[in-house]
Amino acid sequence: MPGGQPSEKSANSKQQDNQTTDDPNFDPIVDIVHDVKSKKPNAQIHAGVEPNVFQTVDKALSITDHFDFVVTPISKSESNRKSKHLDMRHMMVKNCIQGTDMLFRTSSWSNVVVGKIDEQAFHILADSDPSNNFEIYQKVQLIFEQELQWASHLSLPAVLLPSPSKQNVVPFAQLLHRAVSKCGYTNIWIRFQPDQWEEWNQVRIICEHSTKISPILELPENLPERDSQTERWFGEPIRGIVLDKNLFQSDYSLSTKHAFLLQRSFKFDIQVILRGTTNVDELFNMRSYLDDLKSQLPPLTEVELFEKPYWDYLQSPLQPLMDNLDSQTYEVFERDPIKYKLYQDAVHRALVDLKNQSSSSSPFTVMVVGAGRGPLVKASIRASVQSKIPIKLYAVDKNPNALVTLYHFKKTIWSKMDVTIIHSDMRDWNPPELADILVSELLGSFGDNELSPECLDGAQRLLKKGGISIPCDYTSFLSPLNSAKIYSEVKTFVTSAKPLKAFETAYVVKVHRGMCLSNIKKVFTFVHPNPELDVKKYDGLDLHLVPDNSRYTVVPFTVMETSTMHGLIGYFECTLYKDVMMSIHPKTFSKGMFSWFPIVFPLATPITVKKGEELNVHFWRNVDKGKVWYEWMVHNKDTGFVTPVHNLNGRSYKLSL
Amino acid sequence: MPGGQPSEKSANSKQQDNQTTDDPNFDPIVDIVHDVKSKKPNAQIHAGVEPNVFQTVDKALSITDHFDFVVTPISKSESNRKSKHLDMRHMMVKNCIQGTDMLFRTSSWSNVVVGKIDEQAFHILADSDPSNNFEIYQKVQLIFEQELQWASHLSLPAVLLPSPSKQNVVPFAQLLHRAVSKCGYTNIWIRFQPDQWEEWNQVRIICEHSTKISPILELPENLPERDSQTERWFGEPIRGIVLDKNLFQSDYSLSTKHAFLLQRSFKFDIQVILRGTTNVDELFNMRSYLDDLKSQLPPLTEVELFEKPYWDYLQSPLQPLMDNLDSQTYEVFERDPIKYKLYQDAVHRALVDLKNQSSSSSPFTVMVVGAGRGPLVKASIRASVQSKIPIKLYAVDKNPNALVTLYHFKKTIWSKMDVTIIHSDMRDWNPPELADILVSELLGSFGDNELSPECLDGAQRLLKKGGISIPCDYTSFLSPLNSAKIYSEVKTFVTSAKPLKAFETAYVVKVHRGMCLSNIKKVFTFVHPNPELDVKKYDGLDLHLVPDNSRYTVVPFTVMETSTMHGLIGYFECTLYKDVMMSIHPKTFSKGMFSWFPIVFPLATPITVKKGEELNVHFWRNVDKGKVWYEWMVHNKDTGFVTPVHNLNGRSYKLSL
Repeated sequence: MPGGQPSEKSANSKQQDNQTTDDPNFDPIVDIVHDVKSKKPNAQIHAGVEPNVFQTVDKALSITDHFDFVVTPISKSESNRKSKHLDMRHMMVKNCIQGTDMLFRTSSWSNVVVGKIDEQAFHILADSDPSNNFEIYQKVQLIFEQELQWASHLSLPAVLLPSPSKQNVVPFAQLLHRAVSKCGYTNIWIRFQPDQWEEWNQVRIICEHSTKISPILELPENLPERDSQTERWFGEPIRGIVLDKNLFQSDYSLSTKHAFLLQRSFKFDIQVILRGTTNVDELFNMRSYLDDLKSQLPPLTEVELFEKPYWDYLQSPLQPLMDNLDSQTYEVFERDPIKYKLYQDAVHRALVDLKNQSSSSSPFTVMVVGAGRGPLVKASIRASVQSKIPIKLYAVDKNPNALVTLYHFKKTIWSKMDVTIIHSDMRDWNPPELADILVSELLGSFGDNELSPECLDGAQRLLKKGGISIPCDYTSFLSPLNSAKIYSEVKTFVTSAKPLKAFETAYVVKVHRGMCLSNIKKVFTFVHPNPELDVKKYDGLDLHLVPDNSRYTVVPFTVMETSTMHGLIGYFECTLYKDVMMSIHPKTFSKGMFSWFPIVFPLATPITVKKGEELNVHFWRNVDKGKVWYEWMVHNKDTGFVTPVHNLNGRSYKLSL
Repeated sequence: MPGGQPSEKSANSKQQDNQTTDDPNFDPIVDIVHDVKSKKPNAQIHAGVEPNVFQTVDKALSITDHFDFVVTPISKSESNRKSKHLDMRHMMVKNCIQGTDMLFRTSSWSNVVVGKIDEQAFHILADSDPSNNFEIYQKVQLIFEQELQWASHLSLPAVLLPSPSKQNVVPFAQLLHRAVSKCGYTNIWIRFQPDQWEEWNQVRIICEHSTKISPILELPENLPERDSQTERWFGEPIRGIVLDKNLFQSDYSLSTKHAFLLQRSFKFDIQVILRGTTNVDELFNMRSYLDDLKSQLPPLTEVELFEKPYWDYLQSPLQPLMDNLDSQTYEVFERDPIKYKLYQDAVHRALVDLKNQSSSSSPFTVMVVGAGRGPLVKASIRASVQSKIPIKLYAVDKNPNALVTLYHFKKTIWSKMDVTIIHSDMRDWNPPELADILVSELLGSFGDNELSPECLDGAQRLLKKGGISIPCDYTSFLSPLNSAKIYSEVKTFVTSAKPLKAFETAYVVKVHRGMCLSNIKKVFTFVHPNPELDVKKYDGLDLHLVPDNSRYTVVPFTVMETSTMHGLIGYFECTLYKDVMMSIHPKTFSKGMFSWFPIVFPLATPITVKKGEELNVHFWRNVDKGKVWYEWMVHNKDTGFVTPVHNLNGRSYKLSL
């Protein structure tokens, strides 16, 4: 299942009994987790109940339907833990974990309960300087490790921790990092308020970007001023949003700002954790409001439904020059409802212009280079039919498998058209005549990254002087990207033999959990026909006399929000002909088109960038005899920080010519 | 050859002919490299000479004796390279490298000539914005790659480049980095002025700390204000210092500041490159002054001579608990002229104090735990003889090989003394009586890092209540360390299977090319007898009732100079008894002692730190049932930057109990 946001929880709920929970054993700090995205079938808990903290699990589950799990303490909170002077030697005996693991079956534990670590212990840690109060530090460590081991023993999916104080991030993170390597299946969730992003960032770095440690976003009454301060959290692997009852107004609605934020979070399938009450009616009202809020979201469009399985799923860019595309790939491309309409419009406009300039009545020659299974041939034919301007068509492709279909169409639907099918690489074919219009679809997500410049330069000799190339030009774009999700996906590709390779490779990916950290800026532009080829002559003697499609540019960015930069996200814009544009740049996106996802160039080591800092992204497109490759690096002009050059000499990632 | 600074050049010189060089073919930008550290035997160049740039090599070698190599252009500088609008296509033909590789034999090329890359080309690069002048950039790249390939073809040991401008560090470094991976044996030297450290630092990072790229320090007339601004260069892999003739006064002497800097550099065997004249007399006068300057340095002390082979040579700390020391190790330790004298003084002082407090006339019981081949036994006996206070001596060791020697001494030189030899681990031995004095030498370079606390806690039951432990206490110290040399040495230990391990291991090393970036600060102190053991009782039931030698502390440092931090350098101070101190802390060093080199805790990724920044170093000493290990990390309080925790859970480096 590519790119989907897997829910950690499976179904659980119990018959609602609607009684209020005035049971004195009920622990009011139990949080009830509400998964707003689905109503799951019931499942019974196979366990008895003992009158202690575990009763809260049972109680919590018994009071309500449709809540997916509870967050509950997994040990009895001991008042003596509050004492900073407690002798550690006594603590181990007194604080032994209450209850028994036989209350529920493992499948219940692992589906229903998120363990809450003794918060008191961490508050003590937060208040003290652990390097001066080493016993406190050791005590918290012991409590935490015991509880985490117990949680792990119960196969709990996660435990929840309070956030560190600003002063205690390091010892806090080190405790976690040390413990997490021993706790098997259980993950660690840490509550953060939106303005605690830097603390989270430090925790993450100290813990070496462990995927077992995730933030939970706790919404305060006053949300941060800038939306980007909350928005950046959606690039983080947040596992849930905590909503306290006091955020809700008397009619159980939220402020506009809170509501907007929640709606954003629903797009990422982020769970909601309701807190601050055990009153069943209140919980239901809160939940009901959230359900309403979600239902107000427009349903996913057809394109979004198509894209959803690919959210944050990394794909390698195509190498159509080296490999022949398969049938399935052609099929996906051909299904795009927008792209070929744009091509048809472009050919139409070009034909009309040619007709207006020409006195001859003979048909115009259109060559489709890289015809594949014919979508551009069809678009050209439609343009000709619609404009009533006759054309003579050549369909050129090097893929013998595509040829089968092209010949089939020639015999059937194109039998009345002047279509000639040529089995050749466009760079080698010797045409019987030159083209008025050269039509191609060689663009990748970054424009030139599937070697369109090299192919079209090679095919330019097929075009009459003054002839038209469709596309006429294309430009690549970049922005610094924040996406811990993408970073952790890239990390899964790392091998010990080539530890840098995965981070020096570009990926085509529909980035879902991520954010641009600056405006999107132009990188390279290529124009066809290539004006360099008009001026300069081939003499066949010197390799350097072929047009040079290598590039180097420095793109300046201003950081919009203090965040982590995990790489660069790239797009393209393309002029098919005159004002017929095709774009995956978010601001000029060709609505409804789904042929291209953005491209991502990762950074080997994520870098922390601060609001207002000026970054220079250095970007190279390199060409040698056999290959094309990109290199990239980041220079922080404010701090002087530089990254190494990524993908030097194409050592990790190259496009073969 | 551990740790020495290998000279890249072997001997070469030629008969002096003392003629001035008014030859019109002589290129005045030839630099003559003078190796001040040695006079090497003559060697003839086996080559004829052609009248072009290579003649300068011959000329340069012919004019003077004792110069080790020349820095000379390896291609003819073409005036048309200065044009920014030159058509690249012509350049390749015109700029072909002049001369032939048959002028000299390869052994001469590789020993005598450092190639000077066309500086004009790099000046053009420095003056232009390469992202806007891509042709210039490509041209410089081409020139550079051609020249570097030619240099590589000639097996030149190095080529010399001018420094980048502040604006062009990135394209400059990328050119280098790209080319260097292709140039085989040949290294790249870049000239920097002392105030260009940040540019060098960026080049180094962009080039992934390549060991093939080194700086050459070019001294300006006005040296930087703070000595640390030049001093930090000695932590860098600088390959030479360039001295222009105009730095010399009319009597061919240098300013005091320049002279001092040169003398510092001689300690690191850094080569000197003389420049700015081809007048033989002038060159000789300059050289003669430098020889004098060097001769003014005091000769190496015996300790320095002993240490020299170990400069910057990484050793693993001993694990005496786990391994038995071998004879050679014992021998090295026993040769220390200071250490055992200090022990003797301490035992002497302790015996006198005991005698003064005691009314009994029976001998005092001295136990040497970890007696090895007996140096502490000897020191104790000398103390007893000297103080005329009789002692009864137990020599305890677990190493059966050491026992052989102890028994030999007992039969021979100690035959009249009351010495009992015990073959046992000090933690297990059941003594027939308790000791008045417990003598041990279990300290490592970081004090506690050879598990002295654990051993002495285990041996404390051998000591009478109120008895004396020698040593009484010890304290470890740390400072942030700049040393590219140490970093590159650590890098040589990196394996692809465990890429972090080498960087998470401590090394014992006599850091030579390096600098402390802040004052040296206290870390942990251990006291013996351990007062915790006096208060707390064993009950055999709970592991946690043994004394806890784990520690955690946060050590603040203020950065004294903008530089790169490659790790932490550690020392110890120890009180043997009362005011008998033993120390490897630079400020309190026990002069003449050579038993311990400092310890280095590396950082996996060097970090750039700026003058005045506040760093918090978090340092842990962790103990579990089977092992002791350190963890460390750095937090820059000014920028919020944190490193990961190093050596988490002792995954890379541990001391076995």
